[in-house]
Amino acid sequence: MARTEISTLGEFGLIRHLTENIKFHQPSSCKGVGDDAAVMNFSASCGAGKEKDVRVLMTTDLLLEGVHFNLEYVPLKHLGYKAAVVNFSDIYAMNGMPTQITVSLGISQRFSVEDLEELYAGIRLACEHYHVDLVGGDTSASMTGLTISITCVGVAHKDDIVYRNGAKENDLICVSGNLGTAYMGLQLLERERYALHSKDANHTPTQGDNIQAFEGREYLLERQLKPEARKDIIAELKKAGIKPTAMMDVSDGLSSELMHICSQSKVGCSIYEDKLPIDYQAAALAEEMNLNIVTCCLNGGEDYELLFTCDIKDYEKLIPLEDIYIIGHITKQEYGLNLIGRNGEELELHAQGWNAFKNNK
Amino acid sequence: MARTEISTLGEFGLIRHLTENIKFHQPSSCKGVGDDAAVMNFSASCGAGKEKDVRVLMTTDLLLEGVHFNLEYVPLKHLGYKAAVVNFSDIYAMNGMPTQITVSLGISQRFSVEDLEELYAGIRLACEHYHVDLVGGDTSASMTGLTISITCVGVAHKDDIVYRNGAKENDLICVSGNLGTAYMGLQLLERERYALHSKDANHTPTQGDNIQAFEGREYLLERQLKPEARKDIIAELKKAGIKPTAMMDVSDGLSSELMHICSQSKVGCSIYEDKLPIDYQAAALAEEMNLNIVTCCLNGGEDYELLFTCDIKDYEKLIPLEDIYIIGHITKQEYGLNLIGRNGEELELHAQGWNAFKNNK
Repeated sequence: MARTEISTLGEFGLIRHLTENIKFHQPSSCKGVGDDAAVMNFSASCGAGKEKDVRVLMTTDLLLEGVHFNLEYVPLKHLGYKAAVVNFSDIYAMNGMPTQITVSLGISQRFSVEDLEELYAGIRLACEHYHVDLVGGDTSASMTGLTISITCVGVAHKDDIVYRNGAKENDLICVSGNLGTAYMGLQLLERERYALHSKDANHTPTQGDNIQAFEGREYLLERQLKPEARKDIIAELKKAGIKPTAMMDVSDGLSSELMHICSQSKVGCSIYEDKLPIDYQAAALAEEMNLNIVTCCLNGGEDYELLFTCDIKDYEKLIPLEDIYIIGHITKQEYGLNLIGRNGEELELHAQGWNAFKNNK
Repeated sequence: MARTEISTLGEFGLIRHLTENIKFHQPSSCKGVGDDAAVMNFSASCGAGKEKDVRVLMTTDLLLEGVHFNLEYVPLKHLGYKAAVVNFSDIYAMNGMPTQITVSLGISQRFSVEDLEELYAGIRLACEHYHVDLVGGDTSASMTGLTISITCVGVAHKDDIVYRNGAKENDLICVSGNLGTAYMGLQLLERERYALHSKDANHTPTQGDNIQAFEGREYLLERQLKPEARKDIIAELKKAGIKPTAMMDVSDGLSSELMHICSQSKVGCSIYEDKLPIDYQAAALAEEMNLNIVTCCLNGGEDYELLFTCDIKDYEKLIPLEDIYIIGHITKQEYGLNLIGRNGEELELHAQGWNAFKNNK
């Protein structure tokens, strides 16, 4: 039998390949694979009634030890918090409200009850904070490390839901917060881990060895270890009377998410290097580590900020909003995905990250 | 910091411990941890309307390679089918109808695209068969084996939902199909795997080495490798106008499930050894392997049959139903959980399986 390596398709290609031609059997299935969350309409299942406006949203995330997290420097409570929040973020990215989660854990013998209490304390804290209910799950032994699978459901009025496919020419491209910061937090943690391991050969590390390295950089660590979902941005947009035309959360990196929105909306985009929201601590660390902060901003993932497009008529409403930045605009599909540099040069954004820029620098 | 081993609590104790005192924030959360599925009422989220009768059910299952399945003898297509069906079974066990699933996979480099096509073919076949829609998921690299996490949602009319806590004194205890068969299928597969490994030392195994061992025992293998969820039983009960007072599916074993129903309903039970539905192929193999088939029936898991209790007034309606067997009745809580042997002797069923029987034999 033929053997095709998964790497030849990549993650997105694999998902597309495995889920193509899926047919729906249920009238309640509105939207399946291909957005931040699936959309279901259960009010139709009532058989009647006028109140058919509620949609149920559903998203799921699998976190595996050694792939998505390293317990050498990620505290279990933070991990639990983050594992929950990244799911909430997907529901907000549909312009919905997360309401319930289930949590499945695979646990090896290495973990004690106290470890799991810590992990759950983080999950429960996130649930408290975002008013989401933990309603079920599955707990199982694991032969290897820790596995965390969280599924989140939420609700939205059918007219409020924002998909990835609604961006149109001349729409403004906006992001919340800043980008690349969580990635720089990860670099900092990885650097200190490496330094600690190197030292190990020569001397026993003492408490406080790392404190200096982290001083003044707590924000970077927080962005990596304890991200928040932008519930506040969703509320702010609603209050301002703005409904984005397309939206998703930035988990894989700005370039990758722009590629999703543009391909699903059948449009192109131009974003401006000097408009990218970059945190000064992140920029300083990038400088110190000889990394290009713009590359980090475009390709560093896990910021869990919202990326969305708005009709140009909403420009005046957008301006006064806090922590929302206009970084570019939507173009015709044939123009492709472009970054306009500080000197006006155009660089193509590539689907698999920002390859063109690497070649040009 | 103190370290408490997870084994001191056990799986159910651990779940209880981690999820105790969970408070709900959402009016849509009706029922959380502690049944086959969570129950949510999203029609209230509409804000108004008379059609508030639909409930959304949600269940999740995590399957880990080396713990829940062994790819040495489980074909990937069967694994996909089973992974989906066990979730459907949880929704039927609430007297609901499964409607959508999400599938998350953690995949190591060992797997090819063709392998995943096989796995998905099984998942999709199950979805076809049960009219359930695959609406999302997450696919990720894994450092170790294969991880499958499936979450299923479904619907039920609020008056139809059957929980674990509704059994009352004098209710009849019923099961569908037969029990212990999937466990005997597993024993058969394990025996042949062991035999094959032993042979390996002396000679190269040839195709057909195992065929003889499996001949006439296809049903046992099917029960283990390709179980079905008892959608037909749910339909049969509905048609007969019977609503069970308590119900769950048999995934961990009859004793364990009876313990759940009795503790949640605050009742006891008596079941009769000579009423236990046992398949003759399973009994023959148990004999051959020197296993006690009654023990297998009580403690072997993965049959995915339905265990339910019915009001005694439904007795006449139950009798003509196909593939449903009355195995005992509900008693006062203080009588405990008992098995009445063929000679009238009473043996206590223990929470962690059937320890009393072991001591008595």
